[in-house]
Amino acid sequence: MSLILLITNYIGIIAFSIAGSMKAIEKKMDLLGVLTLGFSTSLAGGILADLLLGITPPTNLIYIPYPTVSFVASLLTFAFYKRFSHVNKPLIYADALGLGAFTASGASLAFGVKPEPLLVIMVGTITAVGGGVLRDILANEIPLVLTKEFYASAAIIGSASYYGLAEIGLQTGFLTTLILLLTFGLRLLAIEMKWKLPNAA
Amino acid sequence: MSLILLITNYIGIIAFSIAGSMKAIEKKMDLLGVLTLGFSTSLAGGILADLLLGITPPTNLIYIPYPTVSFVASLLTFAFYKRFSHVNKPLIYADALGLGAFTASGASLAFGVKPEPLLVIMVGTITAVGGGVLRDILANEIPLVLTKEFYASAAIIGSASYYGLAEIGLQTGFLTTLILLLTFGLRLLAIEMKWKLPNAA
Amino acid sequence: MSLILLITNYIGIIAFSIAGSMKAIEKKMDLLGVLTLGFSTSLAGGILADLLLGITPPTNLIYIPYPTVSFVASLLTFAFYKRFSHVNKPLIYADALGLGAFTASGASLAFGVKPEPLLVIMVGTITAVGGGVLRDILANEIPLVLTKEFYASAAIIGSASYYGLAEIGLQTGFLTTLILLLTFGLRLLAIEMKWKLPNAA
Repeated sequence: MSLILLITNYIGIIAFSIAGSMKAIEKKMDLLGVLTLGFSTSLAGGILADLLLGITPPTNLIYIPYPTVSFVASLLTFAFYKRFSHVNKPLIYADALGLGAFTASGASLAFGVKPEPLLVIMVGTITAVGGGVLRDILANEIPLVLTKEFYASAAIIGSASYYGLAEIGLQTGFLTTLILLLTFGLRLLAIEMKWKLPNAA
Repeated sequence: MSLILLITNYIGIIAFSIAGSMKAIEKKMDLLGVLTLGFSTSLAGGILADLLLGITPPTNLIYIPYPTVSFVASLLTFAFYKRFSHVNKPLIYADALGLGAFTASGASLAFGVKPEPLLVIMVGTITAVGGGVLRDILANEIPLVLTKEFYASAAIIGSASYYGLAEIGLQTGFLTTLILLLTFGLRLLAIEMKWKLPNAA
Repeated sequence: MSLILLITNYIGIIAFSIAGSMKAIEKKMDLLGVLTLGFSTSLAGGILADLLLGITPPTNLIYIPYPTVSFVASLLTFAFYKRFSHVNKPLIYADALGLGAFTASGASLAFGVKPEPLLVIMVGTITAVGGGVLRDILANEIPLVLTKEFYASAAIIGSASYYGLAEIGLQTGFLTTLILLLTFGLRLLAIEMKWKLPNAA
């Protein structure tokens, strides 16, 4: 894994864990709920992706650094909740970086297992947003990504681009970085321009 | 796959995708939510069935025609929402055909992997109604099949009959068609006769 | 499997099925919903654990005695609902025994597949509480284990102890019994002392 992908993966895990923990606190869950929602938001998407690809046991349950970082981020959110609720702006950028990193990691993993277009798009997107969907289900809410904002769409475009560019032979290390930046950039643009998908009138 | 099973599978995908899309629109989801709920309702049951049987990556993420039909059906529902809400009657019959086709496909797949009675019943039923359960979870509602109507029950009877008749040696092609028609017929009867399961008083 | 683990597994299946069925009745589900929530609460945790470990088809869909006991327990709950709602006290103890048995079974299974600490803790805990989480999702509620009481925490401590003691070489049969009793004891203590985890103020 390239250094930039590794670093942005950790940034994503931290940002997603904080988002999950804050949702848990908002829903009056206890410490276990906070750790669980932090873990789910940051790592359950990757676990589901592994299951779909037949990778068992899932990497996120074996490789310790990722869950450790998630638990520490959730514990800190739990301890310093009020302070975290004021740092919205940097969190949005960290979240967008994580979206890019997770999309690139997931798409790359799927392409390595079986280079099929829909599989690459689905696994890339699920790696990036599946954890957030589970967080919202556990919080008894309609998943945010299904209702508003241009968020999962960035992951879909990123994953689809990964497939297309991998098919024409781009080198994996360069390609994952490119897709990371493309997805990140799309998400930032979406925030800046307030893009959203249409609703049925 | 026999021609009748193939055709009814597509009818089922279309009917289930429309049902999922309409639920998404009703819940004020955006276009992505509409596509996701259409896909989940029609194809997530088969994906879960594949995971339970150890078939990875799941067929519905590899074989492109099924998801393509789902996306087109969801897009058309999104575009012509108001018109679709008036065609309730034909949709109910298409849905019942899909229930039959999915039950027969799922039971047949499970029997081929491992001819165990509970497995065949569970996988047949999950293939048929699992997507609808996921749709309702994503829409933040109690799954409809758990509360009323004789719907999953038709899939359970169909799958159980598949197991019994396959054990006594009926030929697969004929048997899947028979189970398709049996499940379809049971569901139609249930609608006609307003069957429902008992509640605890 | 040791006799004590076998017996407590059945006690757990009965207690969990009753809890699931009562939730279904409370939510006005029909007979199918009652059977489904009883099955999910008692056996879906083990199914998810199997999927994470790559054991397909899952044991709980192949080995018939477990689901049979679950269905019978759910049917009896359905038939004698009012009487069951008065036997709260014994049910709590049966539930605590089940928590211990499921934790020990899950941790032991995971350790046998791959002796990794997080995997053993997660699979032990998911085997014990995953079914209850699914029950609450299907009932459209926030999972109880995420909000209050010292419940999943007992499973986490039990699973972690399993890993530690298995690593230093304790014999499996003795160890599963020990972890069963430890988890059961912790849960009883938690009820007696009204332990709960902290909330973010």
